[in-house]
Amino acid sequence: MPVNPTQSLLVPVVFATVLALSPPTQAEEAANAQSQPRTTQQVLDASGPGDWRTLDPANTLYMDLADGRAIIELAPAFAPAHVANIRTLAREGFWDGLSIYRSHDNFVVQFGDITEEGAPGKSIGSAKAKLPAEFSRASAGLDFHLLPDADGWAAQTGFAHGFPAGRDPAEGQVWMAHCYGAVGAGRDLAADSSNGTELYVVTGQSPRQLDRNITLVGRVVHGMELLSALPRGTGPLGFYEDPAQRTPIKAIRLASEVPEAERASLEVLRTDTATFDAFVESRRNRRDEFYKRPAGHVDLCNLAIPTREPPKQ
Amino acid sequence: MPVNPTQSLLVPVVFATVLALSPPTQAEEAANAQSQPRTTQQVLDASGPGDWRTLDPANTLYMDLADGRAIIELAPAFAPAHVANIRTLAREGFWDGLSIYRSHDNFVVQFGDITEEGAPGKSIGSAKAKLPAEFSRASAGLDFHLLPDADGWAAQTGFAHGFPAGRDPAEGQVWMAHCYGAVGAGRDLAADSSNGTELYVVTGQSPRQLDRNITLVGRVVHGMELLSALPRGTGPLGFYEDPAQRTPIKAIRLASEVPEAERASLEVLRTDTATFDAFVESRRNRRDEFYKRPAGHVDLCNLAIPTREPPKQ
Repeated sequence: MPVNPTQSLLVPVVFATVLALSPPTQAEEAANAQSQPRTTQQVLDASGPGDWRTLDPANTLYMDLADGRAIIELAPAFAPAHVANIRTLAREGFWDGLSIYRSHDNFVVQFGDITEEGAPGKSIGSAKAKLPAEFSRASAGLDFHLLPDADGWAAQTGFAHGFPAGRDPAEGQVWMAHCYGAVGAGRDLAADSSNGTELYVVTGQSPRQLDRNITLVGRVVHGMELLSALPRGTGPLGFYEDPAQRTPIKAIRLASEVPEAERASLEVLRTDTATFDAFVESRRNRRDEFYKRPAGHVDLCNLAIPTREPPKQ
Repeated sequence: MPVNPTQSLLVPVVFATVLALSPPTQAEEAANAQSQPRTTQQVLDASGPGDWRTLDPANTLYMDLADGRAIIELAPAFAPAHVANIRTLAREGFWDGLSIYRSHDNFVVQFGDITEEGAPGKSIGSAKAKLPAEFSRASAGLDFHLLPDADGWAAQTGFAHGFPAGRDPAEGQVWMAHCYGAVGAGRDLAADSSNGTELYVVTGQSPRQLDRNITLVGRVVHGMELLSALPRGTGPLGFYEDPAQRTPIKAIRLASEVPEAERASLEVLRTDTATFDAFVESRRNRRDEFYKRPAGHVDLCNLAIPTREPPKQ
């Protein structure tokens, strides 16, 4: 009798049911989304092809480890200089042969130390050594899909280009949020000391205090378990004390540099649709039988954006 | 050049500095806590013996795995019936020889399946088969140390008996919150279907939507990395598909049943002191050089309560 704390709590990767007869139009779906409470599964089952998007191969990194591939979506709308540099670094194989050398429990994993002992002699090649800090950007011109609930860390929260984000109308600024899976550019004390070589991935409770204090460059959309379940480092701040504990990186490549036949076919739920609003509502007020008291609230970082394999034609 | 995303972000286990001359009195500390911004390290360095507490052995579980010991503090103030049952189950060795059979990425690990294949024939012994749901309790009579910031999930948040908690003054109810490390009693669809045999531990982003929907019984105060870094199960909801992937539980015992010489000497920061308020303020507004923009906010579940080995006499 495995008694589950929840029986449908997290959104699994879902193969959308293709309705055989009279699929609802998107307009009908939008109307339904507003009118009747549904479970997350019901919302996703009723989604249409237009509710999903594929990743742009020029903004997608494949991080290949011995145990599998993590997929990172880059965010040029938020950090154009860092993303451009990361593209160059990936193209020139900067991370290949380096390692994940830090796993800090309930916080981050980190990789990309150019001085790593035992690693092949590394240079940043034609990437830039110095970049501007990209902690936030002007909100003007950026489509921002607002969430309904209050947040303690930001005046507003929502999604922009598919990324969880905060916004401050008074300052006219918007920024990516440090949710689970966020990928950032490690830096020293100076705000402009990151160049995208050293990257970290959030593996714990969302460290939102870092928002607007460091440059985020994207997020892991697939394969988080390859990073989040790594043994924790026992040195200060989760650095591995023994180099043998590190996880080697076979390669980090841009999807656009990988032969098309070897690319992932993953689709990600769009965050600017009526279906997404219905998804959010299904997380704000859980409708499956397990829940006795729907919360009437959801935090930005409690919304794990669903992904799926595209349905068979 | 390991560039750290933060150089003092998480609170390490701290050995308090014993000041050689004129240590500040607790009253002086309280005054200081209000008057000047300090880093977390400065707050902990200035803490006095009265700012720390030891665990009550009768409310402490030692969970022994091949790789080490996790320490769970039970919360009889919140879930008296479940805690009493768990004490009985531990005393009678219920979990010994069972396993952790679920590791759901960014959510929970779970253990204690009485029907587990391959495990020794198990019974609940003299424990009760049926308990009342203990999702929340009356707030009257429970000391509640309020946090200053708003929370989207609860009207008020704070700490009670050292546990992160929500409170609703209108309903006169208080409940433990699902933060990282929270230990809960798995149940089926019926609210009163948990009996404390099946337990889960939160290993991901705080699933606060479960608050008031399931009975929490305590929290892991030490050794979370033994649970959080376990490989993720590849079956639905993170169940292991191959029994060989499970993590055997050597034993779960009450500290009070363990010879005194074998007990942990861990101390936990009290949550009802002026030092704790200063700690909270140091997390609301980070004062070390890394931070360019203090958040002026902290969420309940972003406050990892510091622990330490007691200073040498």
